[in-house]
Amino acid sequence: MNKPIGIFDSGIGGLTVVKELKKQLPNEQLIYFGDTARIPYGTKSKELIRQFAIEDAQFLMQFDIKLLIVACNTASSLAIDTLREHFPLPIVGVVKPGARAAAQKSKNKRIGVIGTPSTINSGAYAVEIRKQIKTEHIYSQACPLLVPLVEEGWLDGEITRLTLEKYLTNLINKNVDTLILGCTHYPLLKDSIEQVTQGKMTLVDSGLETAKTVKEIMLKENFANRDRKKDNDLYFVSDNPQKFQKIGSMFLGEKLSDVRRIDFEKFLMENSETLKNAPI
Amino acid sequence: MNKPIGIFDSGIGGLTVVKELKKQLPNEQLIYFGDTARIPYGTKSKELIRQFAIEDAQFLMQFDIKLLIVACNTASSLAIDTLREHFPLPIVGVVKPGARAAAQKSKNKRIGVIGTPSTINSGAYAVEIRKQIKTEHIYSQACPLLVPLVEEGWLDGEITRLTLEKYLTNLINKNVDTLILGCTHYPLLKDSIEQVTQGKMTLVDSGLETAKTVKEIMLKENFANRDRKKDNDLYFVSDNPQKFQKIGSMFLGEKLSDVRRIDFEKFLMENSETLKNAPI
Repeated sequence: MNKPIGIFDSGIGGLTVVKELKKQLPNEQLIYFGDTARIPYGTKSKELIRQFAIEDAQFLMQFDIKLLIVACNTASSLAIDTLREHFPLPIVGVVKPGARAAAQKSKNKRIGVIGTPSTINSGAYAVEIRKQIKTEHIYSQACPLLVPLVEEGWLDGEITRLTLEKYLTNLINKNVDTLILGCTHYPLLKDSIEQVTQGKMTLVDSGLETAKTVKEIMLKENFANRDRKKDNDLYFVSDNPQKFQKIGSMFLGEKLSDVRRIDFEKFLMENSETLKNAPI
Repeated sequence: MNKPIGIFDSGIGGLTVVKELKKQLPNEQLIYFGDTARIPYGTKSKELIRQFAIEDAQFLMQFDIKLLIVACNTASSLAIDTLREHFPLPIVGVVKPGARAAAQKSKNKRIGVIGTPSTINSGAYAVEIRKQIKTEHIYSQACPLLVPLVEEGWLDGEITRLTLEKYLTNLINKNVDTLILGCTHYPLLKDSIEQVTQGKMTLVDSGLETAKTVKEIMLKENFANRDRKKDNDLYFVSDNPQKFQKIGSMFLGEKLSDVRRIDFEKFLMENSETLKNAPI
């Protein structure tokens, strides 16, 4: 099916999912929207996150996408059902693939989850893990400072190590053997996390697992693009693209050149009738 | 003049200004708007910050305010002229009062400024300091991690100290004797900053200086409310008020009970005609 795949995130973190998708599905055209005008989502309320998610998805719908990826853990945790009620197309979030992989990988059935405050408060990872295996030992930790640390580029060093120690001590004490990186910024801290956990935890990168799930769906549903892709991937953001371009290459592992700013408020006003009926 | 004073900030930090205003002008009714749905401003673009500032001010205009305080350093640095073009009432930002106080207090005319990336990149503090005194020695440092540290409640301890050391080393080496806390979150880090700078710098709290400036204007222009105030202060936010109430008391030094959430997107849609003509 020669239609693009749509992906949204609160900002830049979703590019870790894009990186994997490009590897696993090189024939697919990707259209990415990063809501950099309203980033971060992870410290905001459930109601607001649902509203933002519907608006972000609505933006991508105009490109006639065949599948929607919610690359933001916070939006996946809190808004995936709302999105499915509202939009009649396959929607893949990052929570379920991450939870499934962790359930498979854990040997002692003691699983840790780290994420933004909203993701952790939602309890969504625990719900999905318990759909896979029976366990009383899921330990969660909100880590609000990790996103700013990554965006500052402090991926290692003493401050990052001490911050991780503070956040991870309880999970280490609970003898967790598998740790879900429940925020798309966190894979950039992999080395530091492994240092602090002394390599004793299997780290689950939800972005990577999501790309695998998308590939499975593509093949199963006969959704994949069989021809080599003709159109370039498109990147849209709701604020000035400069910072996105600069930090984005760190996430994507390659240069990001063509990023376009859209006037998102104008888009919202033009689509206010459609959006008004959304089931938030 | 029995009208209220309007104050806006990107979120919660402006409450440090409110705290001072309540001390210095106890007869005035204050109406506060914290744009918690779109916080932070300090990492976003100039164009977006100007647009947000106009929208925030427009919201406060409906209360027939007599004076507008831009309690956000980022918006003061980048949007104060735009606001003055658009709204015909006295507008006070936090930058000028902070710069003026620093210029008066510095003995060696070596002044440091710390703030969000957008505030620092704007160069607004340096411009205002140079209107007061002649100096080649203004040193600025963007500190993107300090706001998340304050919001996490880590006001002291090793991580905060090491982060401050990293940000302040250059200013210490430059022999700065006066340091402007160019973000309304930073006064909460005062003790830790004094520890790191070993008490060698006079700290200028822009919020406190702004309250003094507002008091001066009130008296000079005969704007002050002579009666004891009858109406309670009002607090509005654009996201769920829970977090604002919780952290807000830390800033205000007293309990914040009545905080109301407004549907800001709805407000923007209803006022799109007025806002369309704003000179951004």
